[in-house]
Parts: sequence; C-alpha cells; structure tokens
Amino acid sequence: MRAIETTIAADLATSEHAIREALARQGFGVLTEIDVTATLRDKLGVERAPLKILGACNPGFAHRALEIDPSVALVLPCNVVLEGVDSGTSVRVVDPRELMDDPRFGALAEEAAARLQAAVGELGRTISSEPLDSP
Amino acid sequence: MRAIETTIAADLATSEHAIREALARQGFGVLTEIDVTATLRDKLGVERAPLKILGACNPGFAHRALEIDPSVALVLPCNVVLEGVDSGTSVRVVDPRELMDDPRFGALAEEAAARLQAAVGELGRTISSEPLDSP
Repeated sequence: MRAIETTIAADLATSEHAIREALARQGFGVLTEIDVTATLRDKLGVERAPLKILGACNPGFAHRALEIDPSVALVLPCNVVLEGVDSGTSVRVVDPRELMDDPRFGALAEEAAARLQAAVGELGRTISSEPLDSP
Repeated sequence: MRAIETTIAADLATSEHAIREALARQGFGVLTEIDVTATLRDKLGVERAPLKILGACNPGFAHRALEIDPSVALVLPCNVVLEGVDSGTSVRVVDPRELMDDPRFGALAEEAAARLQAAVGELGRTISSEPLDSP
C-alpha cells in the first residue's frame, strides 16, 4: 500500500499533536483514533512498539466522493499511522489515489493527496528540529 | 471495492445492533464509529441518507497481520458501512482479501473474510424477518 510518509525526530505524542494541527490546516479533522498498542495489550496481552491509527477526513472531499459513489465509504477515512521507531516517529498517511483507484475519483483523489502531502511536508519542517524526548 | 454485503429489512439502529453482536461472535470488536450523516450536516450543512461507518477489528488477526508487515495499519480496521435504503439497511463490509492483496497476507485475509462472511450471513438470518420500523 503506497503511503505519504516521513520520519520525524520526536516522540509519538509530540508527532501526533503536530500532525493533527497540520491536517487541520489542510481541512482534515481526525474522526477516529485507535491506540493499537493498548488494544493488543488489553485483548491479547502482547507488547509491541507504540502504534496509533488516526482516521482523517476532509468533509468537503468526503461529500464529493460519496456523491460519486457511496461505496467509497468502504475506504474512508484516510488512515494516518504513527509508529515509534528508533529515530523518532514514523508517520504514514494512506494515499487517496491508491484507496480510490476508480477513474471517477481521479481529480478528487489528486486534490486530497496534494493536501495530505502538504500536511506531511509541513510536519517535517515544523518539528524536525525539536529534540527527541528520552524514553 | 469488493464488499461482503447484504440488505436487511430493518432500520439502521436495529441493523447496527445486530451486526455488532454478529461481529462479536466472530471475534471482531468495533473500535471506531463515524456517523457520516451527522458529520456532514455539522460541517457542511448538507443532508443525506443515514450512513455510518464502523471500524471492526479482530485483535488476533490484526496482531498476525502487523507481525507480517506493520504497514498493514494503513488499511485497518475493516470498515462496516451501514446505509439507509428504501428496503431497509444496506450492510457492506470491506473484503480483507482486497484490502490486503499482498500474497503474504493470503491465508490470513481468507480466514478474516470467512469470519466476516459468517457475521453478515448470520445477520440476514437473525433479523430479516423483523418488520421495518416506520420512518
């Protein structure tokens, strides 16, 4: 699965705060949030590196996509995956052009991808110079 | 996007209750919930037919998938789309075989799809005989 991605030298909480603000500036709200690590610990008793999934949605894009074909709801919202890695936090945003590969969504998927790329690009500039918190 | 689907002669709330119970019997919890209709009304002032997206996750399958490749988080959880239609409620569950089309996920995606098909199949039997609530 193709993603729009970057790795930033900050812990997951700092990175999450920054990506939420950058997404908001591009018109994307975060509608859902899954703390995968906590869920797997709770349900299965397993431990893994910090991993969160945010569900980001731009209401204007979502509305236009649903008007084209309501079955697009099967792939909404756009996942933003935050994962703790040695060098900080990996941020991966699903590429709407891959999720909505039907040509009817072509222009819309391009616009949405450009906004998400802008959010991720801004994120790198915003916090890449901040120190990584000690674990 | 291929889906596992059925249409049931019940309103959305009744259908949601039934699919949540059927999913639970197959080991899937609902981790996220988006009331798309309410969100679009709130953010854009538009009205549309009732539409909800539930994010269903079987922790065992999710853990196995993440062990194969953490980037699978880009397509988790499995969306369950409930939409009000003239004849009741359309229920569509994303097909994990399509979401996880990498051959490394083959067996896992087949197992998950079988469980989701069982949940949807059970749903039809459970409530298809109930009367549709008046609008």
